[in-house]
Amino acid sequence: MTLLTNANRGTMQMNNAFDPSDAESLSDSARRLVDRRARLLGPAYRLFYQTPVHMVRGTGTRLWDADGLEYLDAYNNVVAVGHANAEVAEAVDRQMKTLCTHTRYLQDGVLDYAEQLLATFDGAIADGHLMMTCTGSEANDLAMRIAKHRTGNQGIIVTSEAYHGNSDLTSGFSPSLGDNSPLGTWVRCVPAPDSYRVSPSGLGAKFESDVAAAIADLRRHGQGVAALIVDSLFSSDGIYSNPTDLLRGAVDQVHKAGGLFVADEVQSGFGRSGEAMWGYQRHGVEPDIVTMGKPMGNGFPVAGIAVTQDTVARFGAKMRYFNTFGGNSVAVAAAQATLDVIQRNQLVEAVKSTGELIQAGFREIQARHPQLIGDVRGTGLYIGVEMVADPDTKAPDGRAATQVVNGLRDRKVLISATGPAGNVLKIRPPLVFTPEDAKWLIDALDDTLTDLEAL
Amino acid sequence: MTLLTNANRGTMQMNNAFDPSDAESLSDSARRLVDRRARLLGPAYRLFYQTPVHMVRGTGTRLWDADGLEYLDAYNNVVAVGHANAEVAEAVDRQMKTLCTHTRYLQDGVLDYAEQLLATFDGAIADGHLMMTCTGSEANDLAMRIAKHRTGNQGIIVTSEAYHGNSDLTSGFSPSLGDNSPLGTWVRCVPAPDSYRVSPSGLGAKFESDVAAAIADLRRHGQGVAALIVDSLFSSDGIYSNPTDLLRGAVDQVHKAGGLFVADEVQSGFGRSGEAMWGYQRHGVEPDIVTMGKPMGNGFPVAGIAVTQDTVARFGAKMRYFNTFGGNSVAVAAAQATLDVIQRNQLVEAVKSTGELIQAGFREIQARHPQLIGDVRGTGLYIGVEMVADPDTKAPDGRAATQVVNGLRDRKVLISATGPAGNVLKIRPPLVFTPEDAKWLIDALDDTLTDLEAL
Repeated sequence: MTLLTNANRGTMQMNNAFDPSDAESLSDSARRLVDRRARLLGPAYRLFYQTPVHMVRGTGTRLWDADGLEYLDAYNNVVAVGHANAEVAEAVDRQMKTLCTHTRYLQDGVLDYAEQLLATFDGAIADGHLMMTCTGSEANDLAMRIAKHRTGNQGIIVTSEAYHGNSDLTSGFSPSLGDNSPLGTWVRCVPAPDSYRVSPSGLGAKFESDVAAAIADLRRHGQGVAALIVDSLFSSDGIYSNPTDLLRGAVDQVHKAGGLFVADEVQSGFGRSGEAMWGYQRHGVEPDIVTMGKPMGNGFPVAGIAVTQDTVARFGAKMRYFNTFGGNSVAVAAAQATLDVIQRNQLVEAVKSTGELIQAGFREIQARHPQLIGDVRGTGLYIGVEMVADPDTKAPDGRAATQVVNGLRDRKVLISATGPAGNVLKIRPPLVFTPEDAKWLIDALDDTLTDLEAL
Repeated sequence: MTLLTNANRGTMQMNNAFDPSDAESLSDSARRLVDRRARLLGPAYRLFYQTPVHMVRGTGTRLWDADGLEYLDAYNNVVAVGHANAEVAEAVDRQMKTLCTHTRYLQDGVLDYAEQLLATFDGAIADGHLMMTCTGSEANDLAMRIAKHRTGNQGIIVTSEAYHGNSDLTSGFSPSLGDNSPLGTWVRCVPAPDSYRVSPSGLGAKFESDVAAAIADLRRHGQGVAALIVDSLFSSDGIYSNPTDLLRGAVDQVHKAGGLFVADEVQSGFGRSGEAMWGYQRHGVEPDIVTMGKPMGNGFPVAGIAVTQDTVARFGAKMRYFNTFGGNSVAVAAAQATLDVIQRNQLVEAVKSTGELIQAGFREIQARHPQLIGDVRGTGLYIGVEMVADPDTKAPDGRAATQVVNGLRDRKVLISATGPAGNVLKIRPPLVFTPEDAKWLIDALDDTLTDLEAL
């Protein structure tokens, strides 16, 4: 069985991807599904795991496959308030049976939601506007359309393994899509803040000077900076949650150069960090645009941007924005119910304590497997465990991470891997993950590593 | 009260838009909503009508406003199988309570749907693949990413008042967004086939030679053609459903030049024309990519592309495509139920006969108001009525169209206007529009025109 790591960066580059050449090892029914999928959905789709999982049902933090086997979901951030959340399902059902129409008619729901959501921000964004899209890609695409219009510049600065979307524009500033996916001419990449390999105390200054160098390089090529866009948890870069004094200098540089700062909160927003509703707030910076998506409707396709009045004033005066499904009655109902659950159940606080439990457990595991685990990091329910070939050289071990991800899958626990070398275990469960779930996860990881060491 | 026509093309260009400077004429409650909306959603949002409608409930072809007044919906194509369709609502509810997850796990639903949908096509598309997105904009954006990758070219050819999406790329080939919304450098516009002003027998040859000229112009500027993209009902151009021997020559030119033909079926697909499931089929051409959206999930955000194997083979081998919500379990459930209703209830046939009823009624009205109506055209439930200042010169009368749209709104019938001069009444109801609905619509239009003539 082929272990897919980023050694084959290029054609198949994706962490935790199923390799179709392994289809022969699957059960008959799984192979039939895989073949049918290739025929019907074509070659651009990818599956997770060496042995893909066939899901049929879910509730809370649990999923069941076609054989009735139960899985612990420590991966899916989209279903933030839990698989098949009853409150969200009922809100969607009620609205589906009442009205599903768009933003060119007056409706109360979208305004009530916008008011409640904007109140979760601070500064100029809280006094700004909500514009609704259907996906995080659409949100980042719209943010950059506005940034380019506002600044008159084209330049976009991202981290070197960032992912910001699948549209023509956003895939052009998503280096994590792999070497075959072309970056835009005006995109500049800066190294992510690798807190494992660079002293945290120097990271903010380094990030600032890297961004300043990117601005200077854009200028040298005759172009200004439209925006620096950052996911403050650096999800696809390898999960760098700390330090939190990282962004201010870089944001200042961009503002000084006439560009905007866009906080991509598709991953880090809605309480994921356990320390704030929005990831950028941990860094004490003020974005011009905040983009959001994945968990916003607990799986219902809804996303959007929050933008300061000043940033969008001229764009809105000159041009209109309409998104047929964006902000439609049912999308708003799903988003409203999800936000209500997050706030009423004080999930941000719960995320903090459950996340601390997991990290404490993982650090004990690290102490027992020091040759395998180089670093445990993260915040709230976004945790990274860096697998290394040698803790002294800190050489990444993508192969070990792939083995752990698949070993956990065999133990019915779902996680994935991230980072340029695919060697960082990615633990990013629904926000309703409980201390009992945490115990299952910790024990399963310990067991998997013990097996791995015995190989 | 200001009548918004395309005389003020530029800042406010949008047919049937509410002018915020008219807010004083609104009721207190409507003005409060409009103000709140401006504050919360910002300046890029637009409302319909001189007096915006506040919708709270719908069923079938009817909507009710906050005052409990009933409206006939002769405009909203998204809710193809009717507002609050019970079968779609139940399918969504069932799936929301079971599982809502993405395409990186194996699931049956998306494959069953893809199989059933691809069987509605013919030729190479039927043997091709379905790729799922959330919006028509995402579908057109993805289609063009694939077209550019497949051909190695950048050039995109559209009609001169086309609308293909709101993303950075698709808004760049959507001239109908207005003069302030910049077109891409490699976009070329060709005149739409104005069957009212050009002899239909010569339109195909003209369209072919216009497309050939656009290809030559791209070449003169050092670039090849990636794709010609056409909505075969030319919705935003002014609704030109006939003749249907229009596209073949142009498609041949594009193929000869190494480009692709993309059929944008976001408006014309899913039986809208009453003559075929897909608009392009009426023209006897074979697209390389078909894009679809709006009615696909009856309001649930779901869209996608159907693409031939050859077109996407290299793209899929080199790159992956993932859309978090695209093709998720619930989106597929909504799309499946919608397609089932369209097919089981033979809506395409019903659309044909109801559409013929409406056109016959409109032609009688035209005979009674020959100074106002220059042309009645369309197919199925996509009908255009061209308002003219003078039937001899065929001078467009956008102001009259705006008065009719608002006059019908006062009579509780919803339509809109389209075309570069905003003078073409756009009638595009849910597919479940009945003969009784048609009678209400016809009588209301007659009454509105009589009032207009008496002014």
